[in-house]
Amino acid sequence: MNFVCTRCGKTAPLDTLSPCCSCGGLFELDYTPPAWDPRLIDRSAWNIFRYRAFMALEGEAWREVTMGEGLTAAIRLDRDVLVKMDYMTPTLSFKDRGASALVAHMKAIGVKKCVQDSSGNAGVAVAAYCARVGIGCEIYVPEGTSPNKIAMIGAYGAKAVVVPGSRDHCAEVCRAKVREEGAYYANHVYNPFFYEGTKTYVYELLEQLGRIPEHLFIETGNGTLLIGAVKALEHLLACGAIDHFPQIVAIQSENCAPFAETLRQGSEHLVHIKPRPTLAEGIAIGEPARADEILGMIRRHAIRIVTAPEEEILPARAALARRGIYAEHTTAAALAAYRRYCDLYGPAPDSVLSMCSAGIKSDH
Amino acid sequence: MNFVCTRCGKTAPLDTLSPCCSCGGLFELDYTPPAWDPRLIDRSAWNIFRYRAFMALEGEAWREVTMGEGLTAAIRLDRDVLVKMDYMTPTLSFKDRGASALVAHMKAIGVKKCVQDSSGNAGVAVAAYCARVGIGCEIYVPEGTSPNKIAMIGAYGAKAVVVPGSRDHCAEVCRAKVREEGAYYANHVYNPFFYEGTKTYVYELLEQLGRIPEHLFIETGNGTLLIGAVKALEHLLACGAIDHFPQIVAIQSENCAPFAETLRQGSEHLVHIKPRPTLAEGIAIGEPARADEILGMIRRHAIRIVTAPEEEILPARAALARRGIYAEHTTAAALAAYRRYCDLYGPAPDSVLSMCSAGIKSDH
Repeated sequence: MNFVCTRCGKTAPLDTLSPCCSCGGLFELDYTPPAWDPRLIDRSAWNIFRYRAFMALEGEAWREVTMGEGLTAAIRLDRDVLVKMDYMTPTLSFKDRGASALVAHMKAIGVKKCVQDSSGNAGVAVAAYCARVGIGCEIYVPEGTSPNKIAMIGAYGAKAVVVPGSRDHCAEVCRAKVREEGAYYANHVYNPFFYEGTKTYVYELLEQLGRIPEHLFIETGNGTLLIGAVKALEHLLACGAIDHFPQIVAIQSENCAPFAETLRQGSEHLVHIKPRPTLAEGIAIGEPARADEILGMIRRHAIRIVTAPEEEILPARAALARRGIYAEHTTAAALAAYRRYCDLYGPAPDSVLSMCSAGIKSDH
Repeated sequence: MNFVCTRCGKTAPLDTLSPCCSCGGLFELDYTPPAWDPRLIDRSAWNIFRYRAFMALEGEAWREVTMGEGLTAAIRLDRDVLVKMDYMTPTLSFKDRGASALVAHMKAIGVKKCVQDSSGNAGVAVAAYCARVGIGCEIYVPEGTSPNKIAMIGAYGAKAVVVPGSRDHCAEVCRAKVREEGAYYANHVYNPFFYEGTKTYVYELLEQLGRIPEHLFIETGNGTLLIGAVKALEHLLACGAIDHFPQIVAIQSENCAPFAETLRQGSEHLVHIKPRPTLAEGIAIGEPARADEILGMIRRHAIRIVTAPEEEILPARAALARRGIYAEHTTAAALAAYRRYCDLYGPAPDSVLSMCSAGIKSDH
C-alpha cells in the first residue's frame, strides 16, 4: 500500500512525513478493500475498528488509540427521516471517526508531534487522540471558534493557537508552519487515513439497518464525511453489497456554498466565493482542499447540493431539541437543508441525517 | 408485576400516579428476571433495550423512547483500570440509561406531564426523553447548577425552576409540588424503573468483556447507578452467570459523605451530616432517599466506601484529559477516589470506573 498523488499519480511510502506530493497534489491511498462480508465485522470491537477488514490500517496501533468512537444509533426523527447520533463519541463529534484512524496511522509510523488546523471539532478530536497515545500537538483555530472547543483542546494538553482572520487563512498559517518547520500535518483534509475512519459511517448504517437508506444528507465543508461516505458506498456497490447508489445530498451553508455556486455556474473547477458569516461554522469552508475530488464525486454520482437557509438554522435546532436531540448549529443546518430539499424536490422518504456534533459545544 | 413498598410491603399497581406508598416508603418492583443467557440479548437494538429480556418493561413504548443510549465502550486507562465511556449518550451522561427506561414506563401508563428534581444531569436526561415522546416536564434544579445544564433543559422545551438553597432543599420543594398538585414525579431516585435502566451498565460490561471486572468503582450520591448495578449483579450471581460478587467501591465526596460517616459511626441508619461545597456536584447528596436500601446493599456485599479528596479532583480531571478523556468534575472524582483507595487498600487490579458525564457540561 502506498500514497498516490491525486494530481500527478506519483507514489510515496506510507511513512512519509510530507503532507502532500512534491507537485502540491494531495494524496490518496492505493487500497481496495475486500468484498463486503458481514462475517468480517469484528463484533467484539465496540468501536469503528470493528470494520477494520475494510479499512486501510497498519498493524495493531488502533488498539491503543481507540476510545470507543462509533456504534452510534440511527433513530427516527419522523416518518421519513432517521438521524444518526454521531455526536455520541469521545469528543462529542463525528470527527472522532476520522481522528482515531488518522492517529492510529501516526502511531504506526512513529510520529511524535504534529500540527493541525480546524474550525474546532476536528482539532478537538485530533488533540484528544494524540493525548491518548502521547503525541504532541498544536491546533490552529480561527478567531471566533467556540471557547468551549478551545478549552477542550487545552485540557487535552495540546496548544491551541488562535489565528485572526478567516478559516481559510487559519489553514494557510498552519500549512506554512508545516512547510517551514517540517511539522507533521495531522490534518483531516490532507491525510487520506482520516477518510478510512469516516468510511465507517456508511458501514455502520449497513450493519445497523441491514440496508443503505435512499437519501443521505451530508454536511459538506471540507467534505471529510462526504468523501469517506462516497468511498465506502463505491466499495459496497463495486462488490454488489448494494445494488444502486443512494441519492446523496451535500449540505452547504447559503452563506458559504462554493460547490453550489460551482454547479450553478457550470464551472469545471471550484469557483471563488466570498464567504459570509454563518452559524454553521463547521461547514464554513470557502476553498476546500479536495474540491476537484469532490466535484468528481458530485458528477459521478449525481450528488445534489442544497444550501441551509441561515434564518432556518435556529428553528431547526429548536425542532431537534423538541425531539430530544440537542445539536450544534452546523448539525441543525442539516435539518434546515433537508426541509429546503423537500421544498425544491418534493418528499425525500427514507432519509438519514448525521447529528454531527453535540449542541453544548457551540454554546458560549 | 407490581410496585411493592420497601417499608411496609404493601403493593400498588404499575399505573399508579403516586410517587411512593401511602406510608411514605419508596417502591421497588416485584420482578425477577429470567436466568442470564447471552442469546436473549437483542443485538439488533443499538441501545440499552437490547437487554430488555432482563428488564421490567411494559410493551413496546421503549421503541419510541430510545435515542441510542448505551453501547458505550470500556477502554483502558492504565494497566489496572478500564474506564467505561458512559458519557457517550444522547444527553452526555449515564443518566440516559435510567431516564429512557423511566420515560418508557411513563409512556406506557399514559403520563402526560411530570416534574423532577435534579442536580443537573438527571434533569437534563428526563427533559430530553420527555421531549422525545411529547410529555410535558418541569425540572427543579438547585442554585449553582451549571448554566449549560439549565440551557439544555430549556432547549428541550422543559421548564427549569431554579431553587435557592441546597440540593436536598430543592428535592423537598419539588416533592411538595408532587404532594400538593398531584404532579407525576419522574424522579430518578423514587421511581424503580430508573434502576431497570441503570442495571444495563452491568449487563453491558458482561457482554463487552465476557466477564465482570474484580473492582467496580461507582460514584454514589443518591445511588442511582449503585442500586442498578447491585440489582444486576445479584441477578447474575443468583443464576450462576458470575461465580462471585465483585468488590464494589462506592465513591463519595469527602465534603458530602453520609454513607462513609454512617459506617464510621457504626450506625444502623444514615447519620445526619452537614454537606460542604464540593466540585463533585453530581454526588453532593446529604440525605439520599434510598439510604436504608443502600446501607443494606453495603452490608450484604461488603461494599467499601472511599471519599474523593477535594483537592485531587482537578488533578484527576487533568490526568483523564491527558489520556484523551474530558470528563465532568464528578467523574474526575472517581479517579481521585480510585487513587485514594489504592493508597488505603493497596493495588486494585482489574478495576472499572464509570466516565459518567462529559466534561463540557460542567464548564461555565
